[in-house]
Amino acid sequence: MLKLSRTAVKNCKLLSVFKRSLTCSPNVRLSSSLLVSNCNSIKKTFTPINCAGSIRSYSNGPNAVKLTSEVYPNVHRNNHYKKLSSDDLEYFNSILSKQEIMYTGTGNNLQELDLYNEDWMKKYKGQSHLVLKPKSVEKISLILNYCNEEKLAVVPQGGNTDLVGASVPVFDEIILSLNNLNQIREFDPVSGILKCDAGVILENADNYLREHDHIFPLDLGAKGSCHVGGVCATNAGGLRLLRYGSLHGSVLGLEVVMPNGDIVSSMHSLRKDNTGYDLKQLFIGAEGTLGIITGVSILTQPKPQAINVSFLAVQNYEAVQKVFVKAKKELAEILSAFEFMDQRSIQLTKKHIEKDTPFPLEEEYPFYILIETSGSNKAHDDAKLETFLESAMESEIVIDGTIAQDETELQNLWKWREMIPESSQCQGGVYKYDVSLPLKDLYSLVEVVNKKLVEADLLGSAPKPVIAAVGYGHVGDGNLHLNVATRLYSKEIECTLEPFVYEYVSSKHGSISAEHGLGFQKKNYISYTKSEPEIKMMKDLKKHYDSNGIMNPYKFI
Amino acid sequence: MLKLSRTAVKNCKLLSVFKRSLTCSPNVRLSSSLLVSNCNSIKKTFTPINCAGSIRSYSNGPNAVKLTSEVYPNVHRNNHYKKLSSDDLEYFNSILSKQEIMYTGTGNNLQELDLYNEDWMKKYKGQSHLVLKPKSVEKISLILNYCNEEKLAVVPQGGNTDLVGASVPVFDEIILSLNNLNQIREFDPVSGILKCDAGVILENADNYLREHDHIFPLDLGAKGSCHVGGVCATNAGGLRLLRYGSLHGSVLGLEVVMPNGDIVSSMHSLRKDNTGYDLKQLFIGAEGTLGIITGVSILTQPKPQAINVSFLAVQNYEAVQKVFVKAKKELAEILSAFEFMDQRSIQLTKKHIEKDTPFPLEEEYPFYILIETSGSNKAHDDAKLETFLESAMESEIVIDGTIAQDETELQNLWKWREMIPESSQCQGGVYKYDVSLPLKDLYSLVEVVNKKLVEADLLGSAPKPVIAAVGYGHVGDGNLHLNVATRLYSKEIECTLEPFVYEYVSSKHGSISAEHGLGFQKKNYISYTKSEPEIKMMKDLKKHYDSNGIMNPYKFI
Repeated sequence: MLKLSRTAVKNCKLLSVFKRSLTCSPNVRLSSSLLVSNCNSIKKTFTPINCAGSIRSYSNGPNAVKLTSEVYPNVHRNNHYKKLSSDDLEYFNSILSKQEIMYTGTGNNLQELDLYNEDWMKKYKGQSHLVLKPKSVEKISLILNYCNEEKLAVVPQGGNTDLVGASVPVFDEIILSLNNLNQIREFDPVSGILKCDAGVILENADNYLREHDHIFPLDLGAKGSCHVGGVCATNAGGLRLLRYGSLHGSVLGLEVVMPNGDIVSSMHSLRKDNTGYDLKQLFIGAEGTLGIITGVSILTQPKPQAINVSFLAVQNYEAVQKVFVKAKKELAEILSAFEFMDQRSIQLTKKHIEKDTPFPLEEEYPFYILIETSGSNKAHDDAKLETFLESAMESEIVIDGTIAQDETELQNLWKWREMIPESSQCQGGVYKYDVSLPLKDLYSLVEVVNKKLVEADLLGSAPKPVIAAVGYGHVGDGNLHLNVATRLYSKEIECTLEPFVYEYVSSKHGSISAEHGLGFQKKNYISYTKSEPEIKMMKDLKKHYDSNGIMNPYKFI
Repeated sequence: MLKLSRTAVKNCKLLSVFKRSLTCSPNVRLSSSLLVSNCNSIKKTFTPINCAGSIRSYSNGPNAVKLTSEVYPNVHRNNHYKKLSSDDLEYFNSILSKQEIMYTGTGNNLQELDLYNEDWMKKYKGQSHLVLKPKSVEKISLILNYCNEEKLAVVPQGGNTDLVGASVPVFDEIILSLNNLNQIREFDPVSGILKCDAGVILENADNYLREHDHIFPLDLGAKGSCHVGGVCATNAGGLRLLRYGSLHGSVLGLEVVMPNGDIVSSMHSLRKDNTGYDLKQLFIGAEGTLGIITGVSILTQPKPQAINVSFLAVQNYEAVQKVFVKAKKELAEILSAFEFMDQRSIQLTKKHIEKDTPFPLEEEYPFYILIETSGSNKAHDDAKLETFLESAMESEIVIDGTIAQDETELQNLWKWREMIPESSQCQGGVYKYDVSLPLKDLYSLVEVVNKKLVEADLLGSAPKPVIAAVGYGHVGDGNLHLNVATRLYSKEIECTLEPFVYEYVSSKHGSISAEHGLGFQKKNYISYTKSEPEIKMMKDLKKHYDSNGIMNPYKFI
């Protein structure tokens, strides 16, 4: 790696001399499925999290996650929903093949459905006995129509990588998995428009596109497991939003099965269409509460020819903002990621990350920044980044830094950002808050939460329960991830953090969910971000389109 | 201007030698308000269109536009709507100042409201006696609440530059103008987020932003008149969509007054917010049929440091597509516009454009392309464009071309694209179709329409009524503008074109309205683009939120 230093900057030529060419392979960024960590693997493709410690402190046994209904005894099953009967099973068997149904029987042994009943964080667990995995949109239509008539509650499930308990049942809801709806439908290399089934894994879609010189306009850590339909249903943001914008802009059409079984499709190949209300927008971010997304038409982006990654150190959060403004201006059209991490994030990650990923800087600093550029001309991008870094170091905004010189180094730098969520969780548990705040106030939340935890005598060495409250995230999007790493889950920690965090975010006119959604975790807190008239309109919509309330109940609003 | 030639290309150095530096002023692109043409000016700021000829062939007198109700006798006033009474006027006078009300009295003399009753194309004319121009959101809320209770129909009106008759009344609807709601609320140069009233003129917003090193993420010919709220209400696309994406992505929040007077606001400063359904999306492109947009929060873009414009000639439409694919790949992140024009567009424009705007090429060609690049480094952009053009000419895809060498030349090149709409209209009238089509089929519509007009014996020299059917538009967005320039409006031409054009677009899975919306003109044709379930959902929404149907009636769906 090329280390940056003020000496190097003073002799500007040095930078150019040291710089080696970096050729860009199809997969320049680390995919979560490639991560190797200290943890044992739980799921086939997703970042492993079965860590030592008490992450399953709600458990009945050493490997059991406690049921959501036991952890939240105030949430009751709505008896408006019918319980699954043998007639229902008979119907599902009549329209689906054996490969499309998983049923545990009526006993208490739900283990074979654990992967479907439990969320990725092992924080929520439902009690569904039935998973349906239909292979066609028409079958989904038949299923929903039947469930609606019979008042059987349904949870749509994509890759089940949700972080707010939205993709697993709370009680005995039927799980409707999109796993078997996983075909690329078509791709037009001239317009860059991709049409695919909702169940296509994001990484598979991206790999397919890369073979055709394009990329998916969204990237995130869970790409090895999450579905294209799932990222739309949750309006995922991720690492490329700064460059390619939100899914509300890039999704061109959706195919959706409504609760009554109607198939509503706007799966066209058009970048512009102003004929009537843009209905598809309602389903982007609705977390499967209005209908099930079964197909996606999306504008993809040309594959960048060159990628650079730089890892920088700054003295304080004010400097983070200064570097961001400077990068927006000087790197402008080639800036593709601007991530920041605080010292505590990196300290946690150091304990957890594999030993063959050396920390890129010699010393520790209060804040770190990862900048990625993507462009069509390597020499131009190098020159822009070099000029930018020289001036940032000369003016002493940036105090230390390094630039990746090959793909391995590039991946290693990304790893220091991408391993933070896992590192926060691996020592017991984690309380995750994903919030939007005006940029100037972004980091203040981490500071007040640390203060609050100290005052409550919860933060410190064992046996105190909280290890650290760390902050990192997508500065470019005003999106902070506050992770409170704990040695165990406890109501005392939860009550110290909530609703305090939501109240603080609300007082700064932020959003209590920047990209993770509401799900089960935040459904009671929407009023911290949304006004009464807005919530009323949402309830109206939900009631209007899902009058029997069968879609993903106990969540959202 | 720097002329491109294959000789120049063969001796590559020549290009570099000839190239002079082009410094970029704050207003590099031609604003419509600066256009000077052969026409007399009608409105203060918008492109003049009061041309000689029979554009007002529906007129009762030399300067009168015929009433919509007379031209479309099958459309009847809905007597469910109350007629304006003295009590109503008394109420409006009680909440508004004199500057906020224009009332003609009950007589037939509507002239003083012509600017509000007539659309920009002089094709539609309503009969409203009352224009309300409230200065606050609260007053708009009171007005709508009253109108809803009293069943008084309302037409929201921004800059009144709509092209499908959406912004003027059909009968006696009250016009609610946003003209007096025109303040910038705040701008944050760090995040680039602008909040403003809906009635701010687009060009004013853009000028304000340029003073703060930013630009509005949308540009269009009507910028001198159209309102920020209006472009959101119509989901305008314009010239920068290729680069900055659609308003569904860049609008971060809206303040909307609902038909019952409720003020629903999501005017936050957040780039990401996943708490509940994204309600604001419903109002983007709804043409004021669900509520009135009164405030807009939008992500703006850093002002480019360098802009290049090149005007190229190619032999056929296939070559247009080839150049587009090549430009997307090689100009990639700096490509900010890719417009095409056919030979007939330019021939029409040559007759109309002022004499101090020489045609940039020596010969005529079947197709022309205008490429704009915007970036942060002039030298890099020049190098990219140069390499791109050299290879395009060497491979003989591009057969002639020129690059602007200073701002005047740059504006002149843009003029050849921007004057086409006006030129199509100035000899009598124009039938405008703004459609989306898959790229490969985009130009075929112009060919079949010309064929159809010849077969109907309508196209040719006077006295035949049609001068030419020309095609141009935003290739980057799959958006074709088909303009049928006529010597007069006639039912024979209209019946030859409609529904033929819509049927053809539908057969190619296109959209009958790419960016202009449905309005009055296309309301009956939505089923050519949208399916029954979609239309049903839209009608549901309309009924749900505007149960008395007071918002912009006789339009949309």
